[in-house]
Order: sequence, then C-alpha cells, then structure tokens
Amino acid sequence: MIIDCHGHYTTAPAPLWEWRKRQVAGQDPGPLRISDDEIRETLEKNQLRIQRERGTDLTFFSPRAGSMEHHVGDARMSEAWSRQCNDLIHRVCSLYPSNFAPVCQLPQSPGVSPENCIPELERCVQELGFIGCNLNPDPSGGWWQAPPLGDRFWYPLYEKLVELEVPAMVHVSSSCNPAFHFTGAHYINADTTAFMQFIQSDLFRDFPTLKFVIPHGGGSVPYHWGRYRGLAQDMGKPPLKEFLLQNVFFDTCVYHLPGIELLLKVIPVENILFASEIVGAVRGVDPDTGHYYDDTRRYIDAAGLTAADREKIYSGNLRRVYPRFERRAAG
Amino acid sequence: MIIDCHGHYTTAPAPLWEWRKRQVAGQDPGPLRISDDEIRETLEKNQLRIQRERGTDLTFFSPRAGSMEHHVGDARMSEAWSRQCNDLIHRVCSLYPSNFAPVCQLPQSPGVSPENCIPELERCVQELGFIGCNLNPDPSGGWWQAPPLGDRFWYPLYEKLVELEVPAMVHVSSSCNPAFHFTGAHYINADTTAFMQFIQSDLFRDFPTLKFVIPHGGGSVPYHWGRYRGLAQDMGKPPLKEFLLQNVFFDTCVYHLPGIELLLKVIPVENILFASEIVGAVRGVDPDTGHYYDDTRRYIDAAGLTAADREKIYSGNLRRVYPRFERRAAG
Repeated sequence: MIIDCHGHYTTAPAPLWEWRKRQVAGQDPGPLRISDDEIRETLEKNQLRIQRERGTDLTFFSPRAGSMEHHVGDARMSEAWSRQCNDLIHRVCSLYPSNFAPVCQLPQSPGVSPENCIPELERCVQELGFIGCNLNPDPSGGWWQAPPLGDRFWYPLYEKLVELEVPAMVHVSSSCNPAFHFTGAHYINADTTAFMQFIQSDLFRDFPTLKFVIPHGGGSVPYHWGRYRGLAQDMGKPPLKEFLLQNVFFDTCVYHLPGIELLLKVIPVENILFASEIVGAVRGVDPDTGHYYDDTRRYIDAAGLTAADREKIYSGNLRRVYPRFERRAAG
Repeated sequence: MIIDCHGHYTTAPAPLWEWRKRQVAGQDPGPLRISDDEIRETLEKNQLRIQRERGTDLTFFSPRAGSMEHHVGDARMSEAWSRQCNDLIHRVCSLYPSNFAPVCQLPQSPGVSPENCIPELERCVQELGFIGCNLNPDPSGGWWQAPPLGDRFWYPLYEKLVELEVPAMVHVSSSCNPAFHFTGAHYINADTTAFMQFIQSDLFRDFPTLKFVIPHGGGSVPYHWGRYRGLAQDMGKPPLKEFLLQNVFFDTCVYHLPGIELLLKVIPVENILFASEIVGAVRGVDPDTGHYYDDTRRYIDAAGLTAADREKIYSGNLRRVYPRFERRAAG
C-alpha cells in the first residue's frame, strides 16, 4: 500500500472560494452549497486520476495550505473558515474513504494563543475522525511574528495533540511579504526554521510523544545535515538522531532524484514519509525525464531501496506516526 | 591554488567590538587603536593556521557578517561602522597580501536607498583594492522589510557594481527575530529567498553582467533544484541554466560530503566556488569523520571530480567571477 501523507484540496469547487470571498469582504457568506457530484468531479479529474496514474492508494488530505490565510481577519473569521474547510475535507473522506484520510486546518490567528484551536481540533478528531492537523508556525503570513515552536506559547495545543495522539505537519500558508515567494521561499524557509527552532528548544523533553512532520523534504535540513549536526553539537545538545528524530519526520516532497537520494542517504529511513503534495506547487513535466516533477514515487522507486525500506516509507512509518490512521484502517 | 571565497573576520581584536559598543551606546567611540601585532595574532592563531592545516592558499575576507547589524541605528552609524570594519580588512590584506583578498561590508540601513552605499563601495574598490562586497537582502535583521532583490530599489547599487566589475555575495547579518536562529535559519533562508527573488525578476535582462554569489551552498536551492526548475517553468521563465546561471554562483559551505555531492551533481561545475566560511558558523569536529565539519576541502577532494573540475572550483571560477581579483593577482 502506498500512502501519500501530504495532499491539499487545491482543486476544491468554486463555491468554497466564493464563500471565502464573501466572508473576507465582511458580507454574510451564507451557507456553503456544494453537491457531492461537484466534489466527485474535482477529485476524479485531479487527485483520484493522479492516484490511479501513479499507482498510489491513499492520500492524507487537508485544506489548501495557501488558503488557510490565518493572517486575514480575526480568530473568529479563522474559525468559521477552518470549519468550512474541514467539513469539506470530511465530506471528501466520507465519499472516498479508501482514497483519502482527513487532516485538519487549525483556526490560528496572529497574536492569539493557539489554545483557541483546541475546540476545532477536538471536533475534527473526536467527531469527524481526522487523523492529523497542519500547524502554521507563522500565522502572520510571512512576517514571522509568532514565538518559536519551542516556546510555551504553543504548549496548550501540544498538550491536546499529545492527548489525542495527533501529529502536526508544520505548514505555513501564503506569504504577504513580497520578499518571500510562497511555494518557492516561504514554504521551504518555514521547514528549515521549524527544525532549527526544535534544535534550540527542549520541547521533546516536555512532550516526549509529540510528533511533527516537516514537509517539502525538511526544507534545507537534509542538504545541510552537517551544519545542523554541528550547530546542535556546538550548543551542547545530544546527537540529532537521539535528540529530535523520535519526534520529527520528513516527507518526500522533493522534486528530483538527486534530492531524494540525499534525503535517503542522511535521514534514517524510519523518519521518512512518502508524499508528493499533489495537486500542488509544481505542476509541469520535467523535460529532462518526461515525467511530472511532483511524481515523487518514481524517485523513491529509482533510489535502490530494499523492499522493506520502501515499505517503511510508503506505509509503515506513516502508520506509526499517525496512530489514528492505523486504528481507522483497522476499524 | 586553492582560494576560499567566503571568510569573515570573526576573530577581529577586542578593540573593534569595544569601539562598536561605544558607538551603539551613543558615545563618541573615538579612534580605533589596534596594532599590527594584534591583527597578526588573531589571524596566526585562527585563519592562517587553518589555511596551513587544510592546505588552502587564499581567502576572500570580509567583516564579520553577524556584526554588520544594518538594523542598528541609522545610515550614518552604519556608514561609520562599515568604514571601520572595511579599513581593518584592508589592513589584514595589506599585512598578508598572499593570504587574503578584501571584500567589503556595505553601509546599508533599513528603508534607505542602497544608493547610499556607493561612496563606501567606491572607496573600498577604487582606493583600497577591494574585489567584492557583501549585500544584505534584509537590512532589517530578520523582519524582511526590504523590497526583493529584483526590485528597482536596488538598481542604483547594481549599476555601480556592474561599472566596477564587483560581484556581490548575498549575505544577511544577525537576526533580531526570535523565530530565526541566525546561522541555522536566517542565513539559509536568505540564500533560498534570494534565489527565488531572482527567478521572479528580470534582473539579469537589465544587468547581464551583474554577478551574485549565494553562500552556504545556495541555501536549499540545490536540494530542491527540481522544485526551482519546475516553478520557473510554470512561470514561463527560461530553463534556469540559461536564465540565471550566467549570473548566479554557489559557494561550497555545506558541511558534509552527501550535501557537497548533491551540489556537484545538480549545479554545473562552472557555477561552484570553493568556500568554507572559516572561522564561522560551525566550529566542532564531526565525530563520524574525525574532521572539522567546516573542512569543506575534504568533501571536494573526496567527491571524485576530475582534476580540471577541481581546479575550476578551487580557483578558475573565482578568477572569472571576481575580475578584480584576477587583475590584482596579475598586477
């Protein structure tokens, strides 16, 4: 079985985005009307087609990351928007339970304690069967005004994540800062930044079972693995494998074979989770290979792994990191 | 000959930092008194010792990046501080002309047009023989308030760089933003951000001979080379090799062999410049190899390059990118 732990509903039907426009414009957005057929059409043409073409089985599916827009409006707006997005993900996963498992957006808001996310997290996990969430380390949208992820600011949410056995993917939303292109700089920078924040913190001493997935192959971390090992060592921290790799995992959204080969060489196979982020940041075909840049399964298959290691990346590790998925699959 | 294009005077004598403290405190900092012997001692114990131990010949040497602190005080303070730092670099290079070539700090200041840097740049290059400069894409020190590098905001400075035939290394200073550890996140993020800003711009159509060096192995760029190729392609830009690689170069400050191997695999050898950033971000010995993390020569030597390619990385490319170094060496 091949499970992709990182897919967003980037192709959601137009009424969702129109609802959001009305909400942001300060109008009463009214009820969201989307038929099951509309949902089916957006998926059949896109994510389900791609699953079939690439031979993957199931995607951990969350709302479009760039549209979380925690920086827009206030916490109430963020909450109403998160509910709509999460409810839609729930419908997707109810329509196609063997193709998608639900991951939720959190109603974060700049300057607001993430404690405010707990009711929506509990609703998603306990009532709707969600198995994970996306946590935005920069709800200000490119201005980086939140405390680092090791700060106690985040602890109330972490306590709940631990209690619910829900891992968080560290994922920013769009960037309002013209310095940062959103998928080309902001996303990758956030991944790198989060990992360094973990190095600086004692987070996993306080929360030994808390789990984070750093997407996009861990940002720059595997490429600079020597730098991070050396910085941690200079700071008197334990070796990174002991210090962080019980709690931090990397996905495989790296869009060329040499990058994937590096990831597999430096990061223990137990810490790597298959993902492609379809339909996502890069949509074209690589003229050098004739295949889609984001067809990451090809890179994994070409990397010369043993069958046992491939199985870990494609499904074994995911089942361990996302215990609620495992129970859902068993149940 | 082995030339290191990226070294900072991190070990400068204490009176420099004391001068700076007085300046920042708003006192009259008075004259800077450092003897030639004090300079010699800081270098003999550190950079010169390391050059000898590692068998490298010459370092492009600039003021400590983390201390440029463009965000502290105003443009006048930045200018006075830059002059002190650059004068000290000039003294180093006059004392050891076969070991160091000078690269200057620019008196940038948040919100101030970089046109203000031209007099100090001209002084360094035309009067003192400097061969390059460090350009900070974020003079606000981690808050990223400057326009992207493709913006016309930067053009007056670029015109002068082109006229003087001086390349710029894109190098941020320290981070005031608690989200960003300076050497572990801010530096690497800045490298990634700058490259994406270049992809978004038409800078090199306007300045076909302008040259930038992106340090720290290009941030995350080589690891995500497929992503950057794909993003550029989706944006309708030419292939990256044609579009940017006449103008953008990467150094080799990547502190483990697999990272260097990736860099060499995806980036054309003509675009790679040897560097180690001694004495810099990572100071320890890698217990896995028994050698210093930042002993990047070992990785290059171990990477299975032809002698001709090694020569390009160790000196040929640097001579091409830094024409004033070539003339200085010949003169």
